[in-house]
Amino acid sequence: MRNTRKFSAPEPSMRRLPAYLHVLMRLLKENCLFVSCTFIAQEMHLDPTQVRKDLALTGIVGKPRVGYSVVELIEKIKAFLGWDIQWNAFLVGVGNLGTAILGYRQFRTFGLNIVAAFDKDPRRIGKKVFGVNVFSVEKVSLFAREQKIDIGIITVGEEAAQEVADLLVEGLIKGIWNFAPKALVVPPDVIVENAQLSVSLGVLTSKMKLSEKEGNIFR
Amino acid sequence: MRNTRKFSAPEPSMRRLPAYLHVLMRLLKENCLFVSCTFIAQEMHLDPTQVRKDLALTGIVGKPRVGYSVVELIEKIKAFLGWDIQWNAFLVGVGNLGTAILGYRQFRTFGLNIVAAFDKDPRRIGKKVFGVNVFSVEKVSLFAREQKIDIGIITVGEEAAQEVADLLVEGLIKGIWNFAPKALVVPPDVIVENAQLSVSLGVLTSKMKLSEKEGNIFR
Repeated sequence: MRNTRKFSAPEPSMRRLPAYLHVLMRLLKENCLFVSCTFIAQEMHLDPTQVRKDLALTGIVGKPRVGYSVVELIEKIKAFLGWDIQWNAFLVGVGNLGTAILGYRQFRTFGLNIVAAFDKDPRRIGKKVFGVNVFSVEKVSLFAREQKIDIGIITVGEEAAQEVADLLVEGLIKGIWNFAPKALVVPPDVIVENAQLSVSLGVLTSKMKLSEKEGNIFR
Repeated sequence: MRNTRKFSAPEPSMRRLPAYLHVLMRLLKENCLFVSCTFIAQEMHLDPTQVRKDLALTGIVGKPRVGYSVVELIEKIKAFLGWDIQWNAFLVGVGNLGTAILGYRQFRTFGLNIVAAFDKDPRRIGKKVFGVNVFSVEKVSLFAREQKIDIGIITVGEEAAQEVADLLVEGLIKGIWNFAPKALVVPPDVIVENAQLSVSLGVLTSKMKLSEKEGNIFR
Protein backbone atom coordinates (compact mmCIF):
# COMPACT_ATOMS: atom_id res chain seq x y z
CA MET A 1 0.00 0.00 0.00
CA ARG A 2 2.99 2.26 0.50
CA ASN A 3 3.88 2.10 -3.11
CA THR A 4 1.88 4.70 -4.90
CA ARG A 5 4.05 4.98 -7.98
CA LYS A 6 1.92 4.89 -11.11
CA PHE A 7 2.56 2.29 -13.75
CA SER A 8 1.50 2.48 -17.37
CA ALA A 9 -0.49 -0.75 -17.00
CA PRO A 10 -3.55 -1.08 -14.78
CA GLU A 11 -3.18 -3.68 -12.04
CA PRO A 12 -6.40 -5.59 -12.80
CA SER A 13 -5.01 -6.23 -16.30
CA MET A 14 -1.69 -7.36 -14.85
CA ARG A 15 -3.59 -9.75 -12.59
CA ARG A 16 -5.41 -11.29 -15.57
CA LEU A 17 -2.32 -11.91 -17.69
CA PRO A 18 -1.18 -15.10 -15.92
CA ALA A 19 -4.62 -16.60 -16.55
CA TYR A 20 -4.40 -15.76 -20.28
CA LEU A 21 -1.04 -17.47 -20.28
CA HIS A 22 -2.69 -20.54 -18.87
CA VAL A 23 -5.30 -20.72 -21.59
CA LEU A 24 -2.61 -20.17 -24.23
CA MET A 25 -0.32 -22.90 -22.87
CA ARG A 26 -3.24 -25.31 -23.09
CA LEU A 27 -3.93 -24.25 -26.69
CA LEU A 28 -0.28 -24.76 -27.55
CA LYS A 29 -0.42 -28.29 -26.12
CA GLU A 30 -3.45 -28.91 -28.34
CA ASN A 31 -1.40 -27.70 -31.34
CA CYS A 32 -3.58 -24.67 -31.85
CA LEU A 33 -1.39 -22.01 -33.48
CA PHE A 34 -3.75 -19.03 -33.79
CA VAL A 35 -6.37 -17.73 -31.43
CA SER A 36 -8.96 -14.96 -31.53
CA CYS A 37 -9.73 -12.45 -28.85
CA THR A 38 -13.31 -13.71 -28.78
CA PHE A 39 -12.18 -17.26 -28.05
CA ILE A 40 -9.98 -16.19 -25.15
CA ALA A 41 -12.81 -14.01 -23.85
CA GLN A 42 -15.23 -16.95 -23.94
CA GLU A 43 -12.74 -19.25 -22.23
CA MET A 44 -12.24 -16.79 -19.41
CA HIS A 45 -15.80 -15.44 -19.27
CA LEU A 46 -14.59 -11.94 -19.95
CA ASP A 47 -15.62 -9.17 -22.31
CA PRO A 48 -13.69 -9.37 -25.67
CA THR A 49 -12.96 -5.62 -25.55
CA GLN A 50 -11.36 -6.10 -22.15
CA VAL A 51 -9.27 -8.98 -23.44
CA ARG A 52 -8.14 -6.92 -26.46
CA LYS A 53 -7.10 -4.05 -24.16
CA ASP A 54 -5.26 -6.37 -21.77
CA LEU A 55 -3.36 -8.11 -24.54
CA ALA A 56 -2.49 -4.78 -26.21
CA LEU A 57 -0.44 -3.98 -23.11
CA THR A 58 2.06 -6.60 -24.18
CA GLY A 59 2.55 -4.87 -27.52
CA ILE A 60 1.13 -7.72 -29.58
CA VAL A 61 -0.69 -6.96 -32.83
CA GLY A 62 -3.32 -9.41 -34.03
CA LYS A 63 -3.86 -10.25 -37.67
CA PRO A 64 -7.35 -9.60 -39.10
CA ARG A 65 -9.36 -12.82 -39.50
CA VAL A 66 -6.42 -14.90 -38.18
CA GLY A 67 -6.09 -13.57 -34.67
CA TYR A 68 -2.99 -13.79 -32.56
CA SER A 69 -0.14 -16.23 -32.97
CA VAL A 70 -0.31 -18.38 -29.83
CA VAL A 71 3.47 -18.74 -29.61
CA GLU A 72 4.06 -15.02 -30.05
CA LEU A 73 1.35 -14.12 -27.55
CA ILE A 74 2.85 -16.47 -24.96
CA GLU A 75 6.25 -14.87 -25.46
CA LYS A 76 4.89 -11.33 -25.26
CA ILE A 77 2.90 -12.02 -22.11
CA LYS A 78 5.90 -13.69 -20.48
CA ALA A 79 8.06 -10.73 -21.43
CA PHE A 80 5.50 -8.29 -20.06
CA LEU A 81 5.22 -10.18 -16.78
CA GLY A 82 8.98 -10.32 -16.52
CA TRP A 83 8.87 -14.11 -16.68
CA ASP A 84 11.35 -14.26 -19.55
CA ILE A 85 14.30 -13.41 -17.34
CA GLN A 86 15.68 -14.84 -14.10
CA TRP A 87 15.02 -13.02 -10.86
CA ASN A 88 17.31 -13.92 -8.01
CA ALA A 89 15.55 -13.91 -4.69
CA PHE A 90 16.15 -14.34 -0.98
CA LEU A 91 13.42 -15.59 1.31
CA VAL A 92 13.32 -14.41 4.92
CA GLY A 93 11.31 -16.42 7.44
CA VAL A 94 11.36 -20.19 7.10
CA GLY A 95 8.09 -20.91 8.93
CA ASN A 96 5.18 -22.82 7.41
CA LEU A 97 4.48 -20.38 4.61
CA GLY A 98 8.18 -19.78 3.88
CA THR A 99 8.74 -23.53 3.68
CA ALA A 100 5.76 -23.94 1.35
CA ILE A 101 7.15 -21.27 -0.97
CA LEU A 102 10.58 -22.90 -0.96
CA GLY A 103 8.92 -26.18 -1.89
CA TYR A 104 6.87 -24.75 -4.73
CA ARG A 105 8.92 -25.72 -7.73
CA GLN A 106 6.64 -24.04 -10.25
CA PHE A 107 8.04 -20.62 -9.35
CA ARG A 108 11.06 -21.55 -11.45
CA THR A 109 8.83 -21.42 -14.54
CA PHE A 110 8.17 -17.78 -13.71
CA GLY A 111 11.87 -17.02 -13.51
CA LEU A 112 11.98 -16.91 -9.72
CA ASN A 113 15.22 -18.37 -8.45
CA ILE A 114 15.31 -18.54 -4.66
CA VAL A 115 19.03 -18.47 -3.98
CA ALA A 116 19.01 -18.64 -0.19
CA ALA A 117 16.75 -18.45 2.84
CA PHE A 118 17.19 -16.65 6.15
CA ASP A 119 15.81 -17.03 9.64
CA LYS A 120 16.60 -15.87 13.16
CA ASP A 121 15.85 -19.23 14.78
CA PRO A 122 19.17 -21.06 15.49
CA ARG A 123 17.38 -24.40 15.02
CA ARG A 124 16.68 -23.49 11.41
CA ILE A 125 19.99 -21.82 10.55
CA GLY A 126 22.44 -24.13 8.80
CA LYS A 127 19.71 -26.48 7.60
CA LYS A 128 18.61 -27.05 4.02
CA VAL A 129 14.93 -26.67 3.12
CA PHE A 130 13.99 -28.10 -0.27
CA GLY A 131 17.62 -27.77 -1.29
CA VAL A 132 17.90 -24.12 -0.20
CA ASN A 133 20.39 -23.22 2.55
CA VAL A 134 19.11 -21.32 5.57
CA PHE A 135 21.39 -18.60 6.94
CA SER A 136 21.17 -16.20 9.87
CA VAL A 137 19.03 -13.17 9.07
CA GLU A 138 21.92 -10.96 10.22
CA LYS A 139 23.70 -11.82 6.99
CA VAL A 140 20.88 -10.95 4.60
CA SER A 141 21.99 -7.41 3.64
CA LEU A 142 25.60 -8.36 3.04
CA PHE A 143 24.74 -11.48 1.03
CA ALA A 144 22.12 -9.61 -1.02
CA ARG A 145 24.66 -6.95 -2.02
CA GLU A 146 27.31 -9.54 -2.82
CA GLN A 147 25.04 -11.70 -4.92
CA LYS A 148 23.07 -8.87 -6.56
CA ILE A 149 19.70 -10.15 -5.39
CA ASP A 150 16.63 -8.67 -7.10
CA ILE A 151 13.74 -9.77 -4.91
CA GLY A 152 13.26 -10.22 -1.18
CA ILE A 153 10.44 -12.49 -0.09
CA ILE A 154 9.16 -11.66 3.40
CA THR A 155 7.47 -14.54 5.20
CA VAL A 156 8.11 -13.47 8.77
CA GLY A 157 5.41 -12.30 11.21
CA GLU A 158 3.96 -8.81 11.41
CA GLU A 159 6.33 -7.61 14.15
CA ALA A 160 9.57 -8.41 12.31
CA ALA A 161 8.41 -7.46 8.79
CA GLN A 162 9.54 -3.81 8.73
CA GLU A 163 12.93 -4.68 10.20
CA VAL A 164 13.43 -7.37 7.55
CA ALA A 165 12.32 -4.94 4.82
CA ASP A 166 14.94 -2.44 6.04
CA LEU A 167 17.64 -5.12 5.87
CA LEU A 168 16.58 -6.05 2.33
CA VAL A 169 16.61 -2.40 1.24
CA GLU A 170 20.10 -2.14 2.74
CA GLY A 171 20.97 -5.11 0.57
CA LEU A 172 19.91 -3.11 -2.52
CA ILE A 173 17.09 -5.41 -3.58
CA LYS A 174 14.65 -3.89 -6.10
CA GLY A 175 11.43 -5.59 -5.15
CA ILE A 176 9.78 -7.05 -2.08
CA TRP A 177 7.18 -9.80 -2.16
CA ASN A 178 5.52 -9.23 1.17
CA PHE A 179 3.44 -11.95 2.80
CA ALA A 180 3.48 -10.33 6.25
CA PRO A 181 0.28 -8.50 7.24
CA LYS A 182 2.07 -5.17 7.52
CA ALA A 183 2.20 -2.05 5.32
CA LEU A 184 5.93 -1.68 4.69
CA VAL A 185 7.71 1.63 4.41
CA VAL A 186 10.41 1.51 1.72
CA PRO A 187 12.19 4.02 -0.53
CA PRO A 188 10.18 4.94 -3.66
CA ASP A 189 12.49 2.98 -5.98
CA VAL A 190 11.70 -0.32 -4.25
CA ILE A 191 8.56 -2.06 -5.44
CA VAL A 192 6.41 -3.81 -2.86
CA GLU A 193 3.81 -6.38 -3.81
CA ASN A 194 1.61 -7.36 -0.92
CA ALA A 195 0.57 -10.98 -1.10
CA GLN A 196 -1.18 -11.37 2.21
CA LEU A 197 -3.53 -14.30 2.05
CA SER A 198 -5.96 -12.38 4.26
CA VAL A 199 -6.62 -9.90 1.42
CA SER A 200 -7.69 -12.69 -0.88
CA LEU A 201 -9.75 -14.29 1.88
CA GLY A 202 -11.43 -10.93 2.47
CA VAL A 203 -12.43 -10.69 -1.19
CA LEU A 204 -13.96 -14.16 -1.00
CA THR A 205 -15.86 -13.69 2.26
CA SER A 206 -17.05 -10.17 1.41
CA LYS A 207 -18.38 -11.40 -1.93
CA MET A 208 -20.09 -14.32 -0.19
CA LYS A 209 -21.67 -11.91 2.26
CA LEU A 210 -22.69 -9.41 -0.43
CA SER A 211 -24.07 -12.27 -2.44
CA GLU A 212 -26.35 -13.25 0.42
CA LYS A 213 -27.35 -9.67 1.07
CA GLU A 214 -28.02 -8.86 -2.56
CA GLY A 215 -30.50 -11.67 -2.78
CA ASN A 216 -28.61 -14.43 -4.50
CA ILE A 217 -30.09 -17.26 -2.52
CA PHE A 218 -27.74 -20.21 -2.28
CA ARG A 219 -29.59 -23.24 -1.07
CA MET B 1 -11.92 -15.74 -13.73
CA ARG B 2 -15.03 -17.75 -14.45
CA ASN B 3 -17.04 -15.76 -12.00
CA THR B 4 -18.30 -12.70 -13.77
CA ARG B 5 -21.11 -11.85 -11.39
CA LYS B 6 -21.09 -8.17 -10.61
CA PHE B 7 -20.86 -6.99 -7.03
CA SER B 8 -21.89 -3.60 -5.70
CA ALA B 9 -18.36 -3.03 -4.37
CA PRO B 10 -15.31 -2.65 -6.60
CA GLU B 11 -12.63 -5.28 -6.01
CA PRO B 12 -9.70 -2.86 -5.56
CA SER B 13 -11.62 -1.32 -2.63
CA MET B 14 -12.29 -4.77 -1.19
CA ARG B 15 -8.58 -5.49 -1.43
CA ARG B 16 -7.71 -2.33 0.50
CA LEU B 17 -10.10 -2.92 3.41
CA PRO B 18 -7.90 -5.46 5.28
CA ALA B 19 -5.07 -2.91 5.26
CA TYR B 20 -7.34 -0.22 6.71
CA LEU B 21 -8.28 -2.70 9.39
CA HIS B 22 -4.60 -3.09 10.19
CA VAL B 23 -4.04 0.62 10.68
CA LEU B 24 -7.18 0.82 12.81
CA MET B 25 -6.20 -2.09 15.05
CA ARG B 26 -2.90 -0.36 15.72
CA LEU B 27 -4.71 2.90 16.56
CA LEU B 28 -6.99 1.02 18.94
CA LYS B 29 -3.96 -0.46 20.70
CA GLU B 30 -2.63 3.09 21.07
CA ASN B 31 -5.95 4.10 22.64
CA CYS B 32 -6.82 6.38 19.78
CA LEU B 33 -10.63 6.52 19.62
CA PHE B 34 -11.28 8.75 16.60
CA VAL B 35 -9.55 8.96 13.27
CA SER B 36 -9.84 11.18 10.20
CA CYS B 37 -9.90 10.09 6.60
CA THR B 38 -6.84 12.22 5.97
CA PHE B 39 -4.86 10.43 8.66
CA ILE B 40 -5.69 6.97 7.27
CA ALA B 41 -4.86 8.24 3.77
CA GLN B 42 -1.46 9.48 4.94
CA GLU B 43 -0.71 6.24 6.77
CA MET B 44 -1.48 4.21 3.68
CA HIS B 45 -0.12 6.66 1.11
CA LEU B 46 -3.49 6.89 -0.58
CA ASP B 47 -5.70 9.71 -1.79
CA PRO B 48 -8.17 10.84 0.97
CA THR B 49 -11.05 10.83 -1.52
CA GLN B 50 -10.29 7.20 -2.30
CA VAL B 51 -10.20 6.33 1.38
CA ARG B 52 -13.54 8.09 1.96
CA LYS B 53 -15.11 6.14 -0.91
CA ASP B 54 -13.68 2.82 0.27
CA LEU B 55 -14.87 3.34 3.84
CA ALA B 56 -18.32 4.47 2.67
CA LEU B 57 -18.80 0.95 1.28
CA THR B 58 -19.03 -0.31 4.84
CA GLY B 59 -21.92 2.07 5.57
CA ILE B 60 -20.04 4.10 8.15
CA VAL B 61 -20.80 7.80 8.56
CA GLY B 62 -18.05 10.07 9.85
CA LYS B 63 -18.73 12.98 12.21
CA PRO B 64 -17.62 16.44 11.03
CA ARG B 65 -14.43 17.58 12.75
CA VAL B 66 -14.27 14.35 14.81
CA GLY B 67 -13.83 11.76 12.08
CA TYR B 68 -14.73 8.12 12.43
CA SER B 69 -15.03 6.16 15.64
CA VAL B 70 -12.16 3.66 15.47
CA VAL B 71 -14.15 0.93 17.22
CA GLU B 72 -17.18 1.42 14.97
CA LEU B 73 -15.05 1.52 11.84
CA ILE B 74 -13.31 -1.73 12.80
CA GLU B 75 -16.68 -3.37 13.35
CA LYS B 76 -18.10 -2.08 10.07
CA ILE B 77 -15.08 -3.19 8.04
CA LYS B 78 -15.11 -6.62 9.68
CA ALA B 79 -18.82 -6.93 8.93
CA PHE B 80 -18.29 -5.86 5.31
CA LEU B 81 -15.46 -8.35 4.86
CA GLY B 82 -17.57 -11.08 6.41
CA TRP B 83 -15.05 -11.43 9.22
CA ASP B 84 -17.71 -10.98 11.90
CA ILE B 85 -19.14 -14.45 11.37
CA GLN B 86 -17.67 -17.95 11.29
CA TRP B 87 -17.06 -19.63 7.95
CA ASN B 88 -16.67 -23.38 8.08
CA ALA B 89 -14.17 -24.62 5.55
CA PHE B 90 -12.69 -27.81 4.15
CA LEU B 91 -9.20 -27.85 2.70
CA VAL B 92 -8.38 -30.26 -0.13
CA GLY B 93 -4.72 -31.05 -0.85
CA VAL B 94 -2.40 -31.39 2.13
CA GLY B 95 0.86 -30.62 0.30
CA ASN B 96 3.27 -27.86 1.27
CA LEU B 97 0.87 -24.99 0.67
CA GLY B 98 -2.09 -26.85 2.19
CA THR B 99 -0.03 -27.61 5.28
CA ALA B 100 1.08 -23.97 5.54
CA ILE B 101 -2.53 -22.82 5.41
CA LEU B 102 -3.56 -25.35 8.06
CA GLY B 103 -0.75 -24.03 10.25
CA TYR B 104 -1.67 -20.37 9.84
CA ARG B 105 -3.60 -19.69 13.02
CA GLN B 106 -4.36 -16.08 12.14
CA PHE B 107 -7.11 -17.18 9.74
CA ARG B 108 -9.25 -17.77 12.83
CA THR B 109 -9.28 -14.00 13.43
CA PHE B 110 -10.92 -13.66 10.03
CA GLY B 111 -13.61 -16.16 10.95
CA LEU B 112 -12.14 -19.00 8.90
CA ASN B 113 -12.62 -22.30 10.68
CA ILE B 114 -10.95 -25.16 8.82
CA VAL B 115 -12.99 -28.12 10.00
CA ALA B 116 -11.23 -30.90 8.10
CA ALA B 117 -8.66 -31.59 5.40
CA PHE B 118 -8.74 -34.05 2.51
CA ASP B 119 -6.15 -35.74 0.34
CA LYS B 120 -5.91 -38.67 -2.03
CA ASP B 121 -2.52 -39.85 -0.74
CA PRO B 122 -3.04 -42.85 1.63
CA ARG B 123 0.07 -41.80 3.56
CA ARG B 124 -1.63 -38.55 4.53
CA ILE B 125 -5.14 -39.89 5.16
CA GLY B 126 -5.86 -40.58 8.83
CA LYS B 127 -3.14 -38.21 10.03
CA LYS B 128 -3.61 -34.94 11.87
CA VAL B 129 -2.00 -31.77 10.49
CA PHE B 130 -1.92 -28.87 12.96
CA GLY B 131 -4.78 -30.50 14.79
CA VAL B 132 -6.91 -30.95 11.67
CA ASN B 133 -7.89 -34.49 10.61
CA VAL B 134 -7.05 -35.58 7.06
CA PHE B 135 -9.69 -37.71 5.30
CA SER B 136 -9.89 -39.36 1.90
CA VAL B 137 -10.94 -36.90 -0.82
CA GLU B 138 -13.69 -39.34 -1.81
CA LYS B 139 -15.59 -38.30 1.29
CA VAL B 140 -15.44 -34.55 0.72
CA SER B 141 -18.90 -34.08 -0.89
CA LEU B 142 -20.74 -36.17 1.66
CA PHE B 143 -18.99 -34.60 4.65
CA ALA B 144 -19.49 -31.07 3.26
CA ARG B 145 -23.23 -31.64 2.91
CA GLU B 146 -23.50 -33.20 6.35
CA GLN B 147 -21.56 -30.47 8.09
CA LYS B 148 -22.95 -27.54 6.05
CA ILE B 149 -19.53 -26.34 4.94
CA ASP B 150 -19.36 -22.82 3.45
CA ILE B 151 -15.91 -22.66 1.87
CA GLY B 152 -13.73 -25.15 0.02
CA ILE B 153 -10.01 -24.39 -0.09
CA ILE B 154 -8.31 -25.97 -3.10
CA THR B 155 -4.58 -26.56 -2.66
CA VAL B 156 -4.16 -29.46 -5.09
CA GLY B 157 -2.26 -29.28 -8.38
CA GLU B 158 -3.60 -27.94 -11.65
CA GLU B 159 -4.68 -31.37 -12.97
CA ALA B 160 -6.91 -32.29 -10.03
CA ALA B 161 -8.33 -28.81 -9.37
CA GLN B 162 -11.48 -28.99 -11.52
CA GLU B 163 -12.37 -32.45 -10.22
CA VAL B 164 -12.00 -31.23 -6.64
CA ALA B 165 -14.10 -28.13 -7.44
CA ASP B 166 -16.85 -30.42 -8.80
CA LEU B 167 -16.78 -32.47 -5.60
CA LEU B 168 -17.02 -29.31 -3.49
CA VAL B 169 -19.94 -28.01 -5.58
CA GLU B 170 -21.63 -31.38 -5.07
CA GLY B 171 -21.07 -30.80 -1.37
CA LEU B 172 -23.09 -27.56 -1.66
CA ILE B 173 -20.31 -25.24 -0.61
CA LYS B 174 -20.90 -21.54 -1.44
CA GLY B 175 -17.38 -20.33 -2.04
CA ILE B 176 -14.08 -21.69 -3.32
CA TRP B 177 -10.70 -20.30 -2.35
CA ASN B 178 -8.63 -21.55 -5.24
CA PHE B 179 -4.85 -21.78 -5.00
CA ALA B 180 -4.48 -24.08 -8.01
CA PRO B 181 -3.32 -22.40 -11.26
CA LYS B 182 -6.52 -23.30 -13.06
CA ALA B 183 -9.61 -21.33 -14.12
CA LEU B 184 -12.39 -23.30 -12.48
CA VAL B 185 -15.83 -23.81 -14.00
CA VAL B 186 -18.53 -23.66 -11.35
CA PRO B 187 -22.26 -22.84 -11.23
CA PRO B 188 -22.97 -19.08 -11.09
CA ASP B 189 -24.07 -19.20 -7.44
CA VAL B 190 -20.66 -20.42 -6.28
CA ILE B 191 -18.08 -17.69 -5.71
CA VAL B 192 -14.50 -18.41 -6.71
CA GLU B 193 -11.61 -16.36 -5.42
CA ASN B 194 -8.36 -17.15 -7.16
CA ALA B 195 -5.40 -16.84 -4.84
CA GLN B 196 -2.65 -18.17 -7.07
CA LEU B 197 0.68 -16.93 -5.84
CA SER B 198 1.83 -16.65 -9.46
CA VAL B 199 -0.63 -13.78 -10.06
CA SER B 200 0.89 -11.78 -7.24
CA LEU B 201 4.41 -12.67 -8.41
CA GLY B 202 3.45 -11.50 -11.91
CA VAL B 203 2.34 -8.11 -10.57
CA LEU B 204 5.68 -7.74 -8.78
CA THR B 205 7.91 -8.79 -11.66
CA SER B 206 5.95 -6.87 -14.29
CA LYS B 207 6.16 -3.70 -12.18
CA MET B 208 9.89 -4.28 -11.69
CA LYS B 209 10.29 -4.68 -15.43
CA LEU B 210 8.11 -1.66 -16.27
CA SER B 211 10.01 0.32 -13.70
CA GLU B 212 13.28 -0.41 -15.45
CA LYS B 213 11.78 0.30 -18.87
CA GLU B 214 10.12 3.51 -17.79
CA GLY B 215 13.41 4.90 -16.68
CA ASN B 216 13.36 4.53 -12.94
CA ILE B 217 16.98 3.62 -12.52
CA PHE B 218 17.61 1.48 -9.49
CA ARG B 219 21.27 1.38 -8.77
